[in-house]
Amino acid sequence: MSNKPQNFKGMRDHLPAAMILRQHIIATLSSVFERHGFEPLQTPIIEYARTLEGKIGDEEKLIYHFETAGGDKVALRYDQTVPLARVIAQYQGQLVFPWRRYAIGQSYRGERQQRGRYREFWQADIDIIGSASPIADAEIIAVLTESLQALGFSGFTTQINHRQILAGVARASGLDEAAAGGVYRAIDKLDKIGPDGVREELLKSGVAADAAARILEMVLLNGAPSDVLAELSERLSGDERAQGALENLRAILAYLPELGVPANTYAVSPQLARGLSYYTGVVFESVLESPPMGSLLGGGRYDELVGAFAGRPIPTVGLAFGIERLHDLMEELGMGPASRTVAQVFVTLFDRERAPASLALARDLRAAGFKVETALDAGDKLGKQFKYADQRGIPFALVLGPDDLARGEVVVKNLRSGEQRSVARDDVAAALRSGE
Amino acid sequence: MSNKPQNFKGMRDHLPAAMILRQHIIATLSSVFERHGFEPLQTPIIEYARTLEGKIGDEEKLIYHFETAGGDKVALRYDQTVPLARVIAQYQGQLVFPWRRYAIGQSYRGERQQRGRYREFWQADIDIIGSASPIADAEIIAVLTESLQALGFSGFTTQINHRQILAGVARASGLDEAAAGGVYRAIDKLDKIGPDGVREELLKSGVAADAAARILEMVLLNGAPSDVLAELSERLSGDERAQGALENLRAILAYLPELGVPANTYAVSPQLARGLSYYTGVVFESVLESPPMGSLLGGGRYDELVGAFAGRPIPTVGLAFGIERLHDLMEELGMGPASRTVAQVFVTLFDRERAPASLALARDLRAAGFKVETALDAGDKLGKQFKYADQRGIPFALVLGPDDLARGEVVVKNLRSGEQRSVARDDVAAALRSGE
Repeated sequence: MSNKPQNFKGMRDHLPAAMILRQHIIATLSSVFERHGFEPLQTPIIEYARTLEGKIGDEEKLIYHFETAGGDKVALRYDQTVPLARVIAQYQGQLVFPWRRYAIGQSYRGERQQRGRYREFWQADIDIIGSASPIADAEIIAVLTESLQALGFSGFTTQINHRQILAGVARASGLDEAAAGGVYRAIDKLDKIGPDGVREELLKSGVAADAAARILEMVLLNGAPSDVLAELSERLSGDERAQGALENLRAILAYLPELGVPANTYAVSPQLARGLSYYTGVVFESVLESPPMGSLLGGGRYDELVGAFAGRPIPTVGLAFGIERLHDLMEELGMGPASRTVAQVFVTLFDRERAPASLALARDLRAAGFKVETALDAGDKLGKQFKYADQRGIPFALVLGPDDLARGEVVVKNLRSGEQRSVARDDVAAALRSGE
Repeated sequence: MSNKPQNFKGMRDHLPAAMILRQHIIATLSSVFERHGFEPLQTPIIEYARTLEGKIGDEEKLIYHFETAGGDKVALRYDQTVPLARVIAQYQGQLVFPWRRYAIGQSYRGERQQRGRYREFWQADIDIIGSASPIADAEIIAVLTESLQALGFSGFTTQINHRQILAGVARASGLDEAAAGGVYRAIDKLDKIGPDGVREELLKSGVAADAAARILEMVLLNGAPSDVLAELSERLSGDERAQGALENLRAILAYLPELGVPANTYAVSPQLARGLSYYTGVVFESVLESPPMGSLLGGGRYDELVGAFAGRPIPTVGLAFGIERLHDLMEELGMGPASRTVAQVFVTLFDRERAPASLALARDLRAAGFKVETALDAGDKLGKQFKYADQRGIPFALVLGPDDLARGEVVVKNLRSGEQRSVARDDVAAALRSGE
């Protein structure tokens, strides 16, 4: 057994430095979610295959599935929304709606290997289930904003659109609903191919030149949200569903100030598409602009999927944070906790005779709230112990030798600077807290 | 799709009330682990099947395994120790030893369905890897003790034994090493079949009557650890390996007081066997005695397994907390957080016009650290909103009507007692904190 095995390709091991960042991300998100009363839900990673089948079209081929020794056909979950739909059908009597639930955990997809795509990935989902209120939509945007701020992001904009606005734009092109897909797909490429490219695609889809011009004018609208909405309202006049969507968006935006969402963090973006088959109302996507790193996450209202198993539509609005995306980005931008080591202090063992005194010191510091690692081998020279602590990234080392013990003192050594000084044993916690 | 699917049998959904207890257990354990400088590690749930094969003998048939669409033979991890051994071989250059690592996550076994056994289960593992020091063994026992105390357990005893003491007891029976398995198995049944049953089993295994009597006397020894060790030392005199084990155990126990392990929480138990094939040194098991609920968890020193892939023995001591066991037990004993609801306060919406003021109040309370849920539909009557909050288990509801707004006050309603009173808006946080 001396061969060296590898992790399964496309999935990652997270060593401590990475885990400390991931735990920080997850703890930060959970804390914001819970401040808004979202409740944790956890479902198994294995579901009956029939629960997952027939929900995601083409992507279904990415699902890991197998038959157990007992003959059960099972599959690994590929998102946390279908299991949520199952839970809602299975525990109807125990749940009180509207229900704010969050779920943080792994999902699995047999993706082709490529940068930023993993076959095991964590998502932090929040959904408000069982409410069609614009306050619910606004709260999801508020939680999203607070979460990004709590993680340390500042230069982001949340682009907001509505499925029925985009549908109105498509209707304005004179195409019928069935052919609108081409319009959505063209608009979706705006960032990549530019307005001229979109115009070309629209013409190719059979949109008349003047209609294509009107569409482009609409999706390129920008400015203060109220101005964009007013302009759209004029251009889509006579389209009742689009007018209803604009009214809905106005109502949602009206609640954002009281929910603490700063005006400079969002915009109405008629060009935002986001795989519209899934969504039924508001859609949004947060984009990091400084530094310009692209999309952070997105979400929206989807009133059909969550009720799939319950057999009735259940209005729901939500979003999913991709932990891998946040992890990779924060890693790249040097965000997150400054220290990537758990222990704050290392307690050396001077020799076998004095080892118990050092262990007792470690115990007292732990009781005072410090994260403390001790040496394990009293026979090791102090130099070796310091080197170990430094390699482990621990900032301070303490020494309790016979003279220190006699004087009731402890040597506090700063392993970065190499400086050291003697401190009364009772003052060690204070000295460490002051970072000296 | 109106059929109601179920969770895969043998695996559990955790609804919020259960999750709040589980998160409490996991946060409590992590916090104790990190106080001792243990660092988090996370590995994927899917491993190449060859990594997991050939490590657990008969149990191997319980592993879930399958072939991916890409032709890779993979398996779901069944514990967190084999992945640890893989990580140690794969990242040797990046790891500094001794290394205290913890891992909290799911494992999978295709168990027959029975009470307390789950096919998806969470474990919290801690190991000190790369140290043979008795201080490492003592620290694991200290972390175990602190963890159980932090979870709220008090009446438990950690029984401590050593593989080479039990081997010495077997040798004293006159059987050769190969035949000792029968002696271990007989001793392991002591709690179930009593001393007479064990005697019978020993005789059946071919142990002579006088040797069986000596064995029984040894494994039944109890009292102060130093007395038990002294008595064993005398009875196993001349057995060098057993004497070495006794010396090792004495050294481990000597560090426990300084590490903060109370003398009344542990005992030397020569009868403790714990599937000895795996372990090479100290073994221990914590048993809940008041109330008498049996084993809580166990662990020990195993110097071979972790180095399996690295191709050399790597001395390691560790243990695993079974989260399902702790969960079920704490549930049964009514331990853990008193509240099984996330939100501490519910903010009602008086009407549409005053909804923004209520949302702003909720925002301010969140900023003050409260977990706050708001109503979503300003059209709902207050009575309906109170009923919802009460069904959700939220203790307080706040009302901001036109008169309250004019007076700068908020109505604080205790949903348990039904009492309500007006409080100045600025004093709401204080009123909630005082639990009035």
